[in-house]
Amino acid sequence: MAITAFDPRSATELGSYAESAPEDVRRAASAARARFADPAFRDDATRARLLRAAARALRDAGDELRPLCEAETGLPEARVAGELERTCRQLEAFADVVDAAEHVEAIIDLPDPSSTPPRGDIRRMLIPIGPVAVFGASNFPFAFGVAGGDTASSLAAGCPVIAKGHPSHPGTNERVARALLEAGLDGGAFTLIQGTSNEIGEALVDAPEIEAVGFTGSLRGGRALYDRAAQREKPIPVYAEMGSVNPVVVTETALREGAESIADGLAVAVSGAAGQLCTKPGIVLVPDTEAGASFVAAVADRLAGGGPQPMLNERLRDSLSERLDEVVPHVETLRAGGPGDTGYTFAPAAFRTTARALRERPDLTDECFGPVVLFASYADDLEETLASFHGQLAASIHAAPDEAPAIAEILRERVGRLVFGGFSTGVAVCHAMQHGGPYPATTAPWSTSVGMTAIRRFLRPVAWQDAPAQALPPALRDGNPLGIWRLVNGELTRD
Amino acid sequence: MAITAFDPRSATELGSYAESAPEDVRRAASAARARFADPAFRDDATRARLLRAAARALRDAGDELRPLCEAETGLPEARVAGELERTCRQLEAFADVVDAAEHVEAIIDLPDPSSTPPRGDIRRMLIPIGPVAVFGASNFPFAFGVAGGDTASSLAAGCPVIAKGHPSHPGTNERVARALLEAGLDGGAFTLIQGTSNEIGEALVDAPEIEAVGFTGSLRGGRALYDRAAQREKPIPVYAEMGSVNPVVVTETALREGAESIADGLAVAVSGAAGQLCTKPGIVLVPDTEAGASFVAAVADRLAGGGPQPMLNERLRDSLSERLDEVVPHVETLRAGGPGDTGYTFAPAAFRTTARALRERPDLTDECFGPVVLFASYADDLEETLASFHGQLAASIHAAPDEAPAIAEILRERVGRLVFGGFSTGVAVCHAMQHGGPYPATTAPWSTSVGMTAIRRFLRPVAWQDAPAQALPPALRDGNPLGIWRLVNGELTRD
Repeated sequence: MAITAFDPRSATELGSYAESAPEDVRRAASAARARFADPAFRDDATRARLLRAAARALRDAGDELRPLCEAETGLPEARVAGELERTCRQLEAFADVVDAAEHVEAIIDLPDPSSTPPRGDIRRMLIPIGPVAVFGASNFPFAFGVAGGDTASSLAAGCPVIAKGHPSHPGTNERVARALLEAGLDGGAFTLIQGTSNEIGEALVDAPEIEAVGFTGSLRGGRALYDRAAQREKPIPVYAEMGSVNPVVVTETALREGAESIADGLAVAVSGAAGQLCTKPGIVLVPDTEAGASFVAAVADRLAGGGPQPMLNERLRDSLSERLDEVVPHVETLRAGGPGDTGYTFAPAAFRTTARALRERPDLTDECFGPVVLFASYADDLEETLASFHGQLAASIHAAPDEAPAIAEILRERVGRLVFGGFSTGVAVCHAMQHGGPYPATTAPWSTSVGMTAIRRFLRPVAWQDAPAQALPPALRDGNPLGIWRLVNGELTRD
Repeated sequence: MAITAFDPRSATELGSYAESAPEDVRRAASAARARFADPAFRDDATRARLLRAAARALRDAGDELRPLCEAETGLPEARVAGELERTCRQLEAFADVVDAAEHVEAIIDLPDPSSTPPRGDIRRMLIPIGPVAVFGASNFPFAFGVAGGDTASSLAAGCPVIAKGHPSHPGTNERVARALLEAGLDGGAFTLIQGTSNEIGEALVDAPEIEAVGFTGSLRGGRALYDRAAQREKPIPVYAEMGSVNPVVVTETALREGAESIADGLAVAVSGAAGQLCTKPGIVLVPDTEAGASFVAAVADRLAGGGPQPMLNERLRDSLSERLDEVVPHVETLRAGGPGDTGYTFAPAAFRTTARALRERPDLTDECFGPVVLFASYADDLEETLASFHGQLAASIHAAPDEAPAIAEILRERVGRLVFGGFSTGVAVCHAMQHGGPYPATTAPWSTSVGMTAIRRFLRPVAWQDAPAQALPPALRDGNPLGIWRLVNGELTRD
């Protein structure tokens, strides 16, 4: 069996890559479990070095990786280069997290002989959970690929990774994996699995050595993994980041103050990278006014300016066509868009409906993955409409400062991130980032897949009670040898 | 339909209590959702007051609650009184957590125009998830009951609670609920549901308003809820704290230095409260030596000293008898124990096998809920045996300081808490406590059901990007109006 790569710009065949067999998965899982117990891999300084070496190896491979990735994904040169660099920095940022050692969340309660019953010495920190399965996304071949955020945060946590590369860019996966292995993430620390069949993915989720799953992709794919993992004899958490329409709210005031610049930004957010972002704004709520109507027309015009752009693969293009066939009968078409003449291209599409129709046909709020936007005009039913949305990764609010709080109040119950005066497309890698949200945006609303707190997904707390000094990890020892912040008797301190 | 309460000491009927209907669950869920959105309930100071009022109301009801609970559970007077007070303090401790406002884990990354692409202002904190279903345990009618740790941490988080009382002590549940309602936790903030049928519990887990489930009880019960919640159209997390045998390791050195006092402690840990604790040591690994053999005999002797004690209900007594029928053919009986003549009593039992047999028959490491202990003698196979254990709430180590680290190293991968020189039975409510562990000890190893971090189960992160001051919650505003610790640009600060 082999995986064939295609150039989506022309639909030409690029090459053929080996597909893994279920026994490769079992071998990888067993190697990952062994590596998990390896004292060298346990050592934080070693892992931080490995993460930095991986970043260097990826940068060094850039001249090979960039053209390979461009050809396999059809993504523009600048985007591919930017994403590769972002991926390297992400690995380095997690190395910094490991070095800082604060991610273990050390908490110490010293003995309290006066309590009833007398309380002993309790010390708690987070430890790694074990080998993690990562399913790479099609749309971010680097940043959410086999060396992306899930892999970086898992390795940082101390958890070996078995990464299933997305079959849409098998050559990129292979070259990335080679860089990681050459950087020292071999011997079970990182293993690439490739395959087009469900069987391989299922074998990975089923492997008893695997303790968690990271996934970025469709609702259907994420839910299938979630269901599978929940049915294991020992269920494991699935951190699946899935589809979203990331609603945008535009108020009359905002249009009065800057309709043109909002239209510019929205057109880019909808059609950049052919709209193949989980944070693409898919539904835009606009006032049912003259200003609203001309804003909608202005965005549709801008979208008409761009021709068909390559989608990542044939399946995504076909799925989008099928999805639009479902949507079109129920909405007004402003710009039909649709498949282009060459390769797997697709021209941007724009539709219009009413907020009321959205509430009455909730399936209109299902994701259209690609360069498609649906406008919905509201009268006095904005809040009611926002309250009808299910879980979203993000939402964007274009409103006056005195209008924004009421809108944000409703949306925050439904999203992982609120963006004010901008769009949700960019997801910065930083401490405060939250990339997640209530189901169906993710299967784990308490977690994030981007930002430094993503490491928590792969850690769990353990308490040591009345432990002798020798049995305590350094993070919990008297004298605070690591010099980290710890909560001691309820007070944060570095002493 | 009605629930009948029995005095397990005598098997006499105590009274009859109304059973809830599925429509009561639906009404409660809808009220809980409405209360969740109520600005008064959103207010931290208000909720802290409500938690303290609940503690006061429970203390005030003590003279009614204690005898009621003793009669329904057969638990000794001192234990019931101590548990009630612990439950009140737990409510107050969570009120302190709300007042301190640090549990929102505020993180702020100020704009970085120099980054590529320029990064905006990102601020993240935890917010409550929504109404929570709590399933009370039979064995801790107060501390893990309808006003126990799950309820306290959920209310503290800002999540209304629908609590299903354990049918083993319906009168206690009703009186506790009355205290909470009178304290102001009415109008959907707290609702008691009672029932003996699976139907009621299933209706609660299925209610679309419910965002998470807290449960303390058996593996079978917890797994059934987990499976049910995973099959919802919108799956929700189930924080089930389930069975465990909490292995104890005793080394030759430890026996040399204090066999008598370890035997005293172990006998109490096994038989106290008729062994009906999820943290009861169920399996004790002892050296296959003369000292080991006399230690085992000493513990068995001590257990023989106590007569039959009441179990919480008829079902638990019968289940334990059935479980022992499975175990007995494969082990050596040191003390047969078994059902007593009056009520639902059970006399302590002790068995012996080898570490090798434990590895060969993993079902021997399944929980025996009650006053039962199984000794397993090890030679040079201690580490191998420890490595064969599945997830446990806790483990206890009786070893010299230089022996403990190697044992702890293996056990920490399998438990939520390591106890050195003591026993796992007591679970203090403090910041550092971890009461959880890998499956099957819990369905959510990343969480705890006891201790202040239990609040995290009912919170999820949201990020605000480039928000105007008016749209930011106080915890994230410039100037830090709450005066809380926040991670700002990667540094913890109160500024």
